[in-house]
Amino acid sequence: MNQFVFCTPTKVYFGRGVEAAVGETLRSFGAGKVLLHYGGSSARRSGLLDKVTGSLQQAGLPWVELGGVEPNPKLSLIRRGIELCRAEGVDFLLAVGGGSVVDSAKAIGVGLANGCDPWDFIENKTVPSKCTPVGVVLTLAAAGSEMSNSDVITNDENQLKRGITAEAVRPAVAFLNPENTFTVSKFQTGCGIVDIMMHTLERYFTGDADCDLTDRLAEGLLIAVRDAGRAAIADPADYHARATLMWASSLSHNDLTGCGKDRKFPVHKIEHDISGVHDNVAHGAGLAVLFPAWAEYVLSYDVMKFAQLANRVWGIEMNFDHPEVTAREGIRAMRAYFREIGMPTTMKELGIEPEDYDEIIGKTTAGGTTLRSYLPLGPDEIRAIYRLAE
Amino acid sequence: MNQFVFCTPTKVYFGRGVEAAVGETLRSFGAGKVLLHYGGSSARRSGLLDKVTGSLQQAGLPWVELGGVEPNPKLSLIRRGIELCRAEGVDFLLAVGGGSVVDSAKAIGVGLANGCDPWDFIENKTVPSKCTPVGVVLTLAAAGSEMSNSDVITNDENQLKRGITAEAVRPAVAFLNPENTFTVSKFQTGCGIVDIMMHTLERYFTGDADCDLTDRLAEGLLIAVRDAGRAAIADPADYHARATLMWASSLSHNDLTGCGKDRKFPVHKIEHDISGVHDNVAHGAGLAVLFPAWAEYVLSYDVMKFAQLANRVWGIEMNFDHPEVTAREGIRAMRAYFREIGMPTTMKELGIEPEDYDEIIGKTTAGGTTLRSYLPLGPDEIRAIYRLAE
Repeated sequence: MNQFVFCTPTKVYFGRGVEAAVGETLRSFGAGKVLLHYGGSSARRSGLLDKVTGSLQQAGLPWVELGGVEPNPKLSLIRRGIELCRAEGVDFLLAVGGGSVVDSAKAIGVGLANGCDPWDFIENKTVPSKCTPVGVVLTLAAAGSEMSNSDVITNDENQLKRGITAEAVRPAVAFLNPENTFTVSKFQTGCGIVDIMMHTLERYFTGDADCDLTDRLAEGLLIAVRDAGRAAIADPADYHARATLMWASSLSHNDLTGCGKDRKFPVHKIEHDISGVHDNVAHGAGLAVLFPAWAEYVLSYDVMKFAQLANRVWGIEMNFDHPEVTAREGIRAMRAYFREIGMPTTMKELGIEPEDYDEIIGKTTAGGTTLRSYLPLGPDEIRAIYRLAE
Repeated sequence: MNQFVFCTPTKVYFGRGVEAAVGETLRSFGAGKVLLHYGGSSARRSGLLDKVTGSLQQAGLPWVELGGVEPNPKLSLIRRGIELCRAEGVDFLLAVGGGSVVDSAKAIGVGLANGCDPWDFIENKTVPSKCTPVGVVLTLAAAGSEMSNSDVITNDENQLKRGITAEAVRPAVAFLNPENTFTVSKFQTGCGIVDIMMHTLERYFTGDADCDLTDRLAEGLLIAVRDAGRAAIADPADYHARATLMWASSLSHNDLTGCGKDRKFPVHKIEHDISGVHDNVAHGAGLAVLFPAWAEYVLSYDVMKFAQLANRVWGIEMNFDHPEVTAREGIRAMRAYFREIGMPTTMKELGIEPEDYDEIIGKTTAGGTTLRSYLPLGPDEIRAIYRLAE
């Protein structure tokens, strides 16, 4: 087990109706004026925005609104948000939505608190030490951004999708009401299930030995998500299944499942450039295609760990003579599960053809970058992984 | 899954040598003058106290010392600590030790911040909203007090051992170096293993349905502790085993394994009066005796959950015709495990004879108190549980 620092100060209110206390809670966190940040019209249609503004009003908290956050949140809107907050004297950012809205709010907070453009931190590879406080009313169990130290945004000038990782961007407070995810489509539910699993699995396959406690927590989370995922796809209004996915989304990315491990996130990095360039690709769908292919590519470097996952999470009996058979069966079971919950498992299904590969790989490996994994992943290795997903 | 609020802001530094940064870290938390609080001579003999004072000195942080904390920390010393801190202008409490030292520091913090006697909160059944910040350099993996909202102290005037539960008492920062537990005796290591398991199991058996994610995390933690416990007893300097126990101690009592559940802690409450009256009884040893007996007593109210634990954690094959057989086998396996790690499993081994029962039960049920569990536990039920542990 490696050294680690663990600190997850986000205060989570979990359960039915928790968003009714948004106003008074934000007040207790010192909010003076709020940016109400959201995406499209679904939060308005569902009545959630009205509930939230009603609560703000009741607490006597003034707010300004900025909607229009798109999936893969855009730097251009973030810049508009920063200007608006400066002009209006906003000191608290309230994201009502899924991971894109939360990440957009975090980036606004980074720009606002540090008096600069948030993309500077990505360009200069520096870590912001401050962020205007962010609150979250979550409507999608997927990204885990509601408790995480990560913030992924897309520069719409060059289609680069990149992340800021900083303790300062962990939200101050999150309101998690599973009922607010009942209307999430089957496809988006499936994308969320994959994203939650991937946040756990990217921390699971790091090559670090002797992390039994962290591994066991990860496996427990994966099993619970596997079963709740099936249930939520079958019945979108299954409260307990939605609750399991929602809480798992937070725990899968607050770093609980990474303690003592060297997090590298190669598959996320490969995927970011796919959905960065092909804006219609959902992050979770991209991961469902790429992760099993990456797993096949690196399997020989960590056979016993892939066998462990196959056995403990996918219920494959251990082949003690040939552990690699168990390992491969596990990857097959994972692909089958992804298909079962309506996810694509090939590049073609994402709408990406072999002639598109070079452009995307060029972005991932720009400036001679190789990704850290069991072996360094440069252009040739990434192309080989793409091919395993054809 | 019930509603819940989850907030664990304690900043954890985990790994070899982390205590070297105590001074500068406490400075970053705003410390001006520190109370260095500890127990007997072992922290001095091991050189740990010197490392800590060296770090405080290097950071230019003044401190005063108060040693002498005993197991089941006493209100009399806590009161002395409060007076000392007032006289010296202490604004940060640093506990170097195990759960008793941490709980003593928390009680000093409660008295200091609220300008009253900490026992008042127990007597008046009120919850303190403030506590002077507490830091922890942990030397024993057991109580989980380093991340928890609980604080258990003993009133040496009436031998009552009682707890304060308040978010305000969660430590601000904890330094967890597994090497600092290498010298813990086999008996104390065993007590710690039981305490960690019990913090998880008291949250596991609550009668709440549909908490699959919380259950799975609890089971993963229990399995990891089961195996690391054996390894640490066999080789006290097994770093990874000690690391697993240490991190599990924190996670078992920061409430991660209780999310969505109605925590009642009946066995802890029964045990507190045993080790409160019989001061030589170690808390973990008392729990090792009582928990299996309590489990046998309530088994019929939650057969499938006891079978689940037996199957998933103790490796007992499920008897689908007779789940209660599996459930009973699980309790038997738990008792056998406790014996294997050197724990007592009978009242007699604790030095408690049937003629002692009335006095202890009288304290637990004073004023007509019944404990919440699957059924209310009054004097008769508690006596029946004692008898199952004879």
